[in-house]
This record gives sequence, C-alpha cells and structure tokens, in this order.
Amino acid sequence: MDVMHENDLVVIAYRDKKYLKRLEKDKSFHGKGGILPLQSAVGCPFGTRFGEYEVFRPTIEDIIMYGVRRETQIVFPKDAFFICLKLDVRCGSRVLEVGTGSGALTLLLSRAAGPEGQVVSVEKEERHYKNSRKNIERFADFPNTEVHNTDIDEFNADPFDAAFVDLREPWLHVEKLRALLKGGAPVGFIVPTANQVSDTLQAIKGGFGDIEVMEIMLRRYKTLAARLRPEDRMVGHTGYLLFARKIEAVRGMGAGEAEEKLVPEEPELTF
Amino acid sequence: MDVMHENDLVVIAYRDKKYLKRLEKDKSFHGKGGILPLQSAVGCPFGTRFGEYEVFRPTIEDIIMYGVRRETQIVFPKDAFFICLKLDVRCGSRVLEVGTGSGALTLLLSRAAGPEGQVVSVEKEERHYKNSRKNIERFADFPNTEVHNTDIDEFNADPFDAAFVDLREPWLHVEKLRALLKGGAPVGFIVPTANQVSDTLQAIKGGFGDIEVMEIMLRRYKTLAARLRPEDRMVGHTGYLLFARKIEAVRGMGAGEAEEKLVPEEPELTF
Amino acid sequence: MDVMHENDLVVIAYRDKKYLKRLEKDKSFHGKGGILPLQSAVGCPFGTRFGEYEVFRPTIEDIIMYGVRRETQIVFPKDAFFICLKLDVRCGSRVLEVGTGSGALTLLLSRAAGPEGQVVSVEKEERHYKNSRKNIERFADFPNTEVHNTDIDEFNADPFDAAFVDLREPWLHVEKLRALLKGGAPVGFIVPTANQVSDTLQAIKGGFGDIEVMEIMLRRYKTLAARLRPEDRMVGHTGYLLFARKIEAVRGMGAGEAEEKLVPEEPELTF
Amino acid sequence: MDVMHENDLVVIAYRDKKYLKRLEKDKSFHGKGGILPLQSAVGCPFGTRFGEYEVFRPTIEDIIMYGVRRETQIVFPKDAFFICLKLDVRCGSRVLEVGTGSGALTLLLSRAAGPEGQVVSVEKEERHYKNSRKNIERFADFPNTEVHNTDIDEFNADPFDAAFVDLREPWLHVEKLRALLKGGAPVGFIVPTANQVSDTLQAIKGGFGDIEVMEIMLRRYKTLAARLRPEDRMVGHTGYLLFARKIEAVRGMGAGEAEEKLVPEEPELTF
Repeated sequence: MDVMHENDLVVIAYRDKKYLKRLEKDKSFHGKGGILPLQSAVGCPFGTRFGEYEVFRPTIEDIIMYGVRRETQIVFPKDAFFICLKLDVRCGSRVLEVGTGSGALTLLLSRAAGPEGQVVSVEKEERHYKNSRKNIERFADFPNTEVHNTDIDEFNADPFDAAFVDLREPWLHVEKLRALLKGGAPVGFIVPTANQVSDTLQAIKGGFGDIEVMEIMLRRYKTLAARLRPEDRMVGHTGYLLFARKIEAVRGMGAGEAEEKLVPEEPELTF
Repeated sequence: MDVMHENDLVVIAYRDKKYLKRLEKDKSFHGKGGILPLQSAVGCPFGTRFGEYEVFRPTIEDIIMYGVRRETQIVFPKDAFFICLKLDVRCGSRVLEVGTGSGALTLLLSRAAGPEGQVVSVEKEERHYKNSRKNIERFADFPNTEVHNTDIDEFNADPFDAAFVDLREPWLHVEKLRALLKGGAPVGFIVPTANQVSDTLQAIKGGFGDIEVMEIMLRRYKTLAARLRPEDRMVGHTGYLLFARKIEAVRGMGAGEAEEKLVPEEPELTF
Repeated sequence: MDVMHENDLVVIAYRDKKYLKRLEKDKSFHGKGGILPLQSAVGCPFGTRFGEYEVFRPTIEDIIMYGVRRETQIVFPKDAFFICLKLDVRCGSRVLEVGTGSGALTLLLSRAAGPEGQVVSVEKEERHYKNSRKNIERFADFPNTEVHNTDIDEFNADPFDAAFVDLREPWLHVEKLRALLKGGAPVGFIVPTANQVSDTLQAIKGGFGDIEVMEIMLRRYKTLAARLRPEDRMVGHTGYLLFARKIEAVRGMGAGEAEEKLVPEEPELTF
Repeated sequence: MDVMHENDLVVIAYRDKKYLKRLEKDKSFHGKGGILPLQSAVGCPFGTRFGEYEVFRPTIEDIIMYGVRRETQIVFPKDAFFICLKLDVRCGSRVLEVGTGSGALTLLLSRAAGPEGQVVSVEKEERHYKNSRKNIERFADFPNTEVHNTDIDEFNADPFDAAFVDLREPWLHVEKLRALLKGGAPVGFIVPTANQVSDTLQAIKGGFGDIEVMEIMLRRYKTLAARLRPEDRMVGHTGYLLFARKIEAVRGMGAGEAEEKLVPEEPELTF
C-alpha cells in the first residue's frame, strides 16, 4: 500500500477548501476542522480521513491552484486543461510558451510533454521570470522545461510543434510566432478583452488557418444529493481563447500541370 | 520540412467544417470548396492551403470528432480534456475506464498515459466493445490500451491510479470501484441527468472524499474581427461531471497514544 | 422640466453601486465619492451628476434591489422580469402569488397589473407577512394588492388569471392551485434545487400542460469601451423556473358524434 | 366559465411546439398529433386537451414567437421581457422605440404602457414600417402605438420617459436620442457584436450615466421528472444589451455658496 512519508507534499481537503502542505515533522495544520499534527499522516495511506480533514496526493490542479506562487493572473485549470489538449501536446512534444507569467500553465505543459518532450517558455519581465523559475523548480515532474528572460522578438529556436501565447498585445508578434512554428502547428492565445480578440483575429488571418474563438465556462454544483443546485456564485470570465494553425504554404488545387506552373512562378508563401 | 506523404491521415478544414481523410492515391476530396485531388497534398508541408481548403495533421480532437466511429454518445472534447487532466493522468499512469462506449475518451487517456502508461477499459456490450476496439486499433498512438468485454462487477485487477466511469447507473458499482482504486486515487463520472447526479452523490459519500460536481460549457464565437459575436446556437448540455477521491482509511487526529487506541479497537476501514 | 423635490425617493449611483435615498432636508449622503448634501439635489432635474454621483428617479429594479427590506431570499429582477411577462400579467390582470416572501415580486406584479388589476398574495409566516406588507405599503404604485397571512390550502377566492408560486414544497399544493386558476391560466414556480424541479414536474403533469423548465442567466460586462469584457464573477444560480398552464378539460378530437358520446359518459375533468 | 368562441385567436401546443391559430369554422389543424377540427374547440374552456393537443389563450410570448410576421431579426422574449421592465415601462409610460423592425418588442411595450400610455416607434425602412404596422394592427391590445416611417434624426417629439434603440449604428444618433429623453430617463440598446458595444459605450459616456452592459441567457430543460437535464442545444447569442440613463445636468456637490458660484460661471449642461 502506498503510504505517506515525512516531507511528502500533500493536499488537505476540508469541506470545499484545500491546502497544499509538506508533511514536516513537528508541524501541525491549524484549520476550522481543528489541529492536525502532520506527523499523524506519516505512515497512513494516501486518502486518509482525519476528522473532517482528508489528505491526498496533490494533483496538477492542486499544485496550480494551491502551490504556485502567483505574481500574475494565472491560466486557471478550466482553461489550462483545454488549452493543453487542444494544442495536441503529448509525450514527446516540443512546445513554446510566450509569456510564462507565474508558470502555472508551464507546469501543465511540462507534465503533458513528458520526459521525452520539451517546454521552452519566454518571459520578458525579470520579476516574473524569477518567480516562474522557482515555481517550476519546485513543482515540475520532469526536467524538460527552460524559461528565457527575453522578449519574444529577440528569441530564436528551431520551430516548435505547438505554441501558447499569453501577452497583452499578441498581434505585435504574429510574424515572429509564425517563424517559431512548424507547418500546420497549433497555436493558442488567451486575452481578457473582446477588443484584444478582434485585434488578434485581424493579425493572424492569412498566416494562420482553422481559426476558432471560444470561452470555457465552469459551473460548479453543491454536492448534497437531496438538494442538488449550482453554486450561488461562479467565475464569470477568465479570458477568451483563440486557436489557429500555422499556414505554411499556399498552392493551387489541381494536381500535375497547373500546380507545376504555380510553384515556380509565384513564391510559395504569400504572407 | 515536415511534408505530407501518401496514406498520411490529414484533416481538411473548410470554413468551420473539418473532414478526416487519408491521402490515398487517385482519390479526391469533394466539398463545397471544389474538388481537391488528394495527390496534390503529397509532398506539400502540413499546413498547406488549397483554395478554401486547409490541410493539417490531425490533432486528438480531430480524431475524436471526425475519426472515431460512434455507436454511442461520446465524451466530447470539452469534457474529455477536462476529465483527463482533472484525473491527473500523466505519462506512466495506469488508468481504468468503465464504459468504453465508442472509445473516444479511451484514445485521449491512452495518449495522456503515454508509452509507459496503461489504460484498461471495460465495456459490457459486445457491440460497443467491438467497435471501440476498432477505433482504438485505428487511432491510438501507443499500444498501451486493453479493452475487456465484461461487466465491471466481474472484473478484477490491481488497483489503478485513476478511474473514469461512464455508466447509466454508476451508483450500483461503487464498492467495486473502490476495490479497483489506490488510496486517494481520483475518480470521475459523467451522467446526463440531475437525478443521476443525486443518486451517485448518495452512493459515493463516505467511501470517497473531495467530491465535486460541475458542468463545462463551451461557447464559440464567430471569427470576423470587425463583428465579434458568439455563435447563435451552442451546445446546451452534454453531461454533468462528478469527481471524487477514494478514502482509503479513517484515523483519529492525534498522534501517538490516541491513535494507538483507535487503530486496534476499530477496523481501519469503516466502509 | 421634471425636477427633484424635497422628500422625493431617488437612487444615487456611484460607479457600479446604487443607493436608494429620500431627499430629506439637512441630511447628507456619505459615500466613497464624498459627502453630498441631499438638499443640493432639490430643484435639480432628475439625472443630475454631482461629482462622481448621479441622481435618478428609482426604477422598479432599484426599488426591488435597494429599497425592499429583505427577510427572505427575494426573486431577483433577472427572474422577476421574465416571470411577470411570461405569466402574461398586464394592465387589468388578477394575479395570485403564493409565498409573498419579502414582497419584491409582489411589487412588480402590482406594477404590471396596473390600477385596474389586482394582486392577491398569500404568506403563511406571520413575520414575512408583516414585513412584506410594510414593503408594499412603502413602495407600491397602486393600491391594488392584498396580502393574506394564511396557508394556501386554507385560502379561497375566485379563479385568477395567473399565479406564481414560491414555496419549498409546491408539489403539496397542486390541486389547490388548480382550483384557484382559470382554465388555461399560466402558472410559474421558482425552486432552488433540481430535486424540487423533479418533484414539481411529477406533481403537475396531467393537470397542467405546456410545461417548461428553464434558468435565466445574467452575465454582466465591464463598461470600458476599449476593454470590453465580462465581469470576473457572476451569479451562478438563483433558482429554476417552471411554467405551465392549467388544463381545464379533456375532450375527444372529433367534432359531432364522437364528442357527444365522450362528454356524457366520462367526467369532463379526469384529474 | 371562460370558453372559446368562433374566430378566437388560440395557441395550440403539441409537445414542445406551438401554433397560433384562429378558430375558423370548417377549418382543421393538421399536425403530428392528428387532425383537429377547430370547430371542436368552440364552446370548450380555454385550457382544453384534445388528444396530444392543448389549446390555450395566447400569451404575449405566443404572439411574439408565433404570430408576428418577421421581416427582420426580432427581439426575443428572453431579452424583450428584461428590456421592458429594465426601462421601467408601466401603465401610463410614454416610450420611444428607435428601429421598429417587425414590431415584436413594440407589441410588448404597448402592452406594458397600457391604455393610458403611449408608444412611439420610428422605422426608417419603408418595408419594415409597413410590416410592423400590420403586426401591430393585428395584435396590439391597445390603440396606444404609432409607427413613423422616418429616420430618427428627422424625428421630433416631446421628451419620452424611456427609449429603446435597435439600430446598426446607434452611436451616430446619441445626441438626437438625448434630445428625445427626459432627464434621468432610462435608455436601452441591443447590438449583436462586441465591436458595436464598444462603439456605443464610447458614444454615450458623458451624456449618460449608470451604464450597464449585459447578456441574458436562457437555458431550457427537458421536462421528464425522472430524467431532468438541460436541452442538448441552446440559443448561444441573440444580442448584447446596454442600459443607461440620461444625464440632464452637472452640478457642484456643495449646497449654497459653492454651487452659486458654479452655476453662473459654467453652463449647466456640458454636453
């Protein structure tokens, strides 16, 4: 059986609150459910209930929500989970992130890219760069992630399988972004305002295809079986998500002669 | 440069529609954007635009939406992406799925568990079992998935890191489910009706902790920069999601003496 | 020009907050926008801006939100506005309300029924009865409303044009409700939980037709032109709304002979 | 008892569909529930069930949805109900509508303003003007409504208690609109795109206060008691709603001396 050891990272759930803690000797958890000496949990299986407290192994959501030190607005799990899989990140992917922020999404991308994959994240603000580095060192599963303290326009690398952009003015960096992506590679953006969505849409058309704009809304329910009802309050907005894929080339539709003519006469890329 | 080869699986995007196709020699794609001889794409980079068509490498979402042959309602990407990461599935996870259905979520779990992981899926209906096997054979990235044509109550295996349940009456199988999960392991359920949510909540309380109920709503926007607006129609409901984690043991809160007394006098597990 | 007079009821808006006040001599409004002597507004037109304060004539929404003294959960404007018109209340309607609560919806029904109409509201709890009476005396436009401190099952009156029910267990009073409604008259219910929706649906089928269940969600936006975005937080739930219309009679479909046979042999009402 | 007469307007409900019909002699209703000779309903009470058909007196919602002949996108009931009461329209109100369209909202405003009230609606397009006139003649409860076939900028009248604007470019008419409103009077706008919201917000600031932007979402549920669940599909968007109130004057906050100074030195109205 899988038991908890001293210094393990755990999440303590109390009603609908959660706390990320390390099982340090001689420390106690003080909450509304009373005092829990953390030593009590050592040797118990993960998933042990102590009074009203429940102690679990932290999930990536627990780490993002309760572990990451936030110096910026983070990409919340409802959006992060969607982004990560919408961008088709998988074991072995090489992913670019523009705008590391506090590194919350970075941790998820690192997890999804796996030990064979790679995450390269670019953050212009030195303060956020430093904070995100600490969060990544503390919480990343695999040593597959590097953060660069630079402006995306100064950054060069081989093209990536996918990219995610969390910048205030993503439309200023669209050409650079194209240069950093493989043909057909998916890219995602998050922006808080409708005006930014319009500006980004304007900038990416032509050079990107399969453009989508969407919002993810998460509605939570109270968990009493006999009184099932949504929570009174919910998150009304985090950000608008845009997704697209890089157009690498434009060709004529015909096979054979027509295409032969097209290719030498016109530049393959028309952007 | 990464170019398309004969027999590659591709997704063809035309406005807001997509089609999953294999680049078979001498075949053409006939759509509202005209006839595209598939041979034209061979040798072009992924991400090539032909007239109004755009040809990309399929993402897991493309495969779920346009590749999987559906004999059942599938778990749609908006829910599947959330479930997969909420259950903390990562490279190396061993995951149980109860109710394979058409295998759409299975493919995503397989992808997320990676080459070192394992997905075990149980499907009672022989017809769905056969169909899901075909979908998995056709589309899985890794040979890490097995489907069993059996009732979950007849199925035995070592405990799993996580489980997802898509059954009509999940409340009938809660004890079995607990037996198949490691201590603290997350479990998810999808059910279409509020009545099923209530019944499941009633059944899991006690044996599971950190219980959450939620819905994920995806709202799409039209992508004209100068006329940004949500789509007129949206999906109003797919299913309610429940998440919980297995409680493995119940203990007293004190360290030392108090606990010593508790443990021998009462059975450790109270379920 | 329409100017403010001493003792007028006004609403003072400050950013996204509002306050209902009477323009009493020698009193001041103390808010984050500074001190406004209420005397300043006397003689000014409705719609005058004083610094960051704006002073308006209160709408029915202002009165419901900032005037009504709440001893119960009220029916909020997003739902109340919908209910009132869905029930087809108009100048001259005779409307029954079961469960006056604090009288917020009562005020709206009174307004909509107009001077020729009538609102009869029934409240079992003496405390709420008294409070709602005060709210109605203070804020109603027309003397068209009576509140009865009684259980609905004890209440008798001529049948109404429409009814609204805000009770914990509406399913216990369905027969009584039918007796108080004209043939075909619309009825609405509000209940907070999904379980109550199911129980009410079960109780009204047969005796009511055209049954609908719905939720109204109101999503507010920040009002900066250059940074348009939804509010971060929103109301996630107030209540589920049910609407139906009383079935008065059941008949055969044919004209003439078939119907002649049906009517005398079977009771016209089959409930 | 209130029975149906020949030539009465009725709504026939069949499952979740509705049909507005006149009880014309010798006509039948042909639907999926069979053939119903309309003569059968004459003499029966409103709220009679014939097989699977249910026959009711039409509500204003029935008339808007199934009666009004649409030549334009209409303001749907979920929005119309909210608008009407948000604008504080009541028995006796004088209301301006700019952009009559097909007259659906006009009918609701007419109903709410009652026999003592007045609705003045302005429509530039002759074709829509004619169609809306027909709808209003056919369905209005009271002869309190006039439609003018003119551009709002050419239109003059005494100031109104409230106004609603449904135009493509409302920001071009803001000064005119102010001239047509009483001090503090509420105004509403509906626009389909986020870009139009931004442009309208930009235009109304200063001259209007208490500005709000919102969306109303209506989520319908299936009505089986034992299988309660939202409908699979829902309306994702009709329009964004803006509300504001006319600022008539700007004054200093102090009473007495300070104000005396302010008023003569600066013009009272600064727009």
